[in-house]
Amino acid sequence: MAASESSAPTDPLAVDMPLRVRYVECDRMGVAHHSHYPVWFEMGRTELLRSLGMTYRQCEDAGIFFVVTYLEIRFRAPAHYDDELLLRTTQRRMTRVRIDHDYRLTREGIVLCEAHSTIGCVDRSGRVSPIPSPLRPAD
Amino acid sequence: MAASESSAPTDPLAVDMPLRVRYVECDRMGVAHHSHYPVWFEMGRTELLRSLGMTYRQCEDAGIFFVVTYLEIRFRAPAHYDDELLLRTTQRRMTRVRIDHDYRLTREGIVLCEAHSTIGCVDRSGRVSPIPSPLRPAD
Amino acid sequence: MAASESSAPTDPLAVDMPLRVRYVECDRMGVAHHSHYPVWFEMGRTELLRSLGMTYRQCEDAGIFFVVTYLEIRFRAPAHYDDELLLRTTQRRMTRVRIDHDYRLTREGIVLCEAHSTIGCVDRSGRVSPIPSPLRPAD
Amino acid sequence: MAASESSAPTDPLAVDMPLRVRYVECDRMGVAHHSHYPVWFEMGRTELLRSLGMTYRQCEDAGIFFVVTYLEIRFRAPAHYDDELLLRTTQRRMTRVRIDHDYRLTREGIVLCEAHSTIGCVDRSGRVSPIPSPLRPAD
Repeated sequence: MAASESSAPTDPLAVDMPLRVRYVECDRMGVAHHSHYPVWFEMGRTELLRSLGMTYRQCEDAGIFFVVTYLEIRFRAPAHYDDELLLRTTQRRMTRVRIDHDYRLTREGIVLCEAHSTIGCVDRSGRVSPIPSPLRPAD
Repeated sequence: MAASESSAPTDPLAVDMPLRVRYVECDRMGVAHHSHYPVWFEMGRTELLRSLGMTYRQCEDAGIFFVVTYLEIRFRAPAHYDDELLLRTTQRRMTRVRIDHDYRLTREGIVLCEAHSTIGCVDRSGRVSPIPSPLRPAD
Repeated sequence: MAASESSAPTDPLAVDMPLRVRYVECDRMGVAHHSHYPVWFEMGRTELLRSLGMTYRQCEDAGIFFVVTYLEIRFRAPAHYDDELLLRTTQRRMTRVRIDHDYRLTREGIVLCEAHSTIGCVDRSGRVSPIPSPLRPAD
Repeated sequence: MAASESSAPTDPLAVDMPLRVRYVECDRMGVAHHSHYPVWFEMGRTELLRSLGMTYRQCEDAGIFFVVTYLEIRFRAPAHYDDELLLRTTQRRMTRVRIDHDYRLTREGIVLCEAHSTIGCVDRSGRVSPIPSPLRPAD
């Protein structure tokens, strides 16, 4: 199993999530295919939300959806099959309708990848929608 | 393109769909990972339905869903990256609530894989539901 | 995170692996797409091997590969996004060149899926090859 | 089939590839999950290379590998299940060891997504390596 528990670094808006590279995630070169990194980032956002006492499933059940509108990834070194990695996900900025996250993926302290994303809040019909107050810091 | 090239064999309830193995579908051994075959079978069912004048998207929009309840696959020989394959999907049997399909995947006539599946018709809430008449042969 | 540690049931040739359904694994119906189950089964085999003191990565590094030659899955009930599931993987039978496994996927004791697979041992060139003795029970 | 339909725009270093959104590529929101776009871009690069008379498979067989080192994606509008999309892949710049590509994904002329990537040439061991001359324009 991908392992133990997600843990919170000192920053309350960051979370460290361990993950183990799956066989199916590796390609002919024997390294994790780059298309799986966005999946791991999504898992990081989910765990960050969970660490704040909510689940993304509850959000969607309540008609609150987040869609990825921007993604930028710098791949620095490959990850291999069965590697144990650590993904730090940090919420960098929140506006009325969007959230920016930073990601840093490491293996034993070595940075394999750095990334940034923007997610936007939409309603069930896909229209831009204000992020509900339980998810927003006090003004 | 899944669609463009699909052709109907003599059996009206069968369809041949060409497909090319994607890079991301191959694993460390350099062959198509077995978890992608069910995806190709699903595409085969979609094209079979299209050849009958319907789309599965229309079905779901109308509240008719099909869920896979059984799947059996025999892998005979590996498929490699960029291989051009041919998938024959045949509807073998339809009851009031389920459909059985056969699949045969070949590369230049050589059989790589044979499979069978059962899909069941359910409504939006997931309850077993009769297959609507436009999808059923005349009684 | 998918959670805690894999644990060994009383059967030494079985292992229980917890897993959490990823967002990307769910489809338009909101349930885990059936093509991801074979991925989970593969993870189960990996953890079973690990519980026996080996890793599949070591096997491949030593030129020992296992390919799936048969797979049979019965889907009994859907798994949903963020569900915590338990997969029990059991080694049922080993011959000189192949291993049969059983799988049972549950959520809070309810069986969602049962499956069987056969994997065959091959060398780097894909030829059938005897399973090396460290992996085989004493005769 | 990814291949069959690809057509060359007036720019010799661009290629248009049609693609149909697969069921498995769509998520709970009913739209194509963002992690599949990098897969489509990779297919676009493959078809661009093919339009130039080579295949990426030949490259890898000859010990020439390309790894993605940078990826930036702007998602403008969602793609839905069974949508027929058109991906234009353009080679924007080539240095001695890397190639920059642009991507534009459209549905009936409407831009759904724009992206950029950098791929670097490496040898079998993963070391940066000059792009072989058959792939490079005349000096």
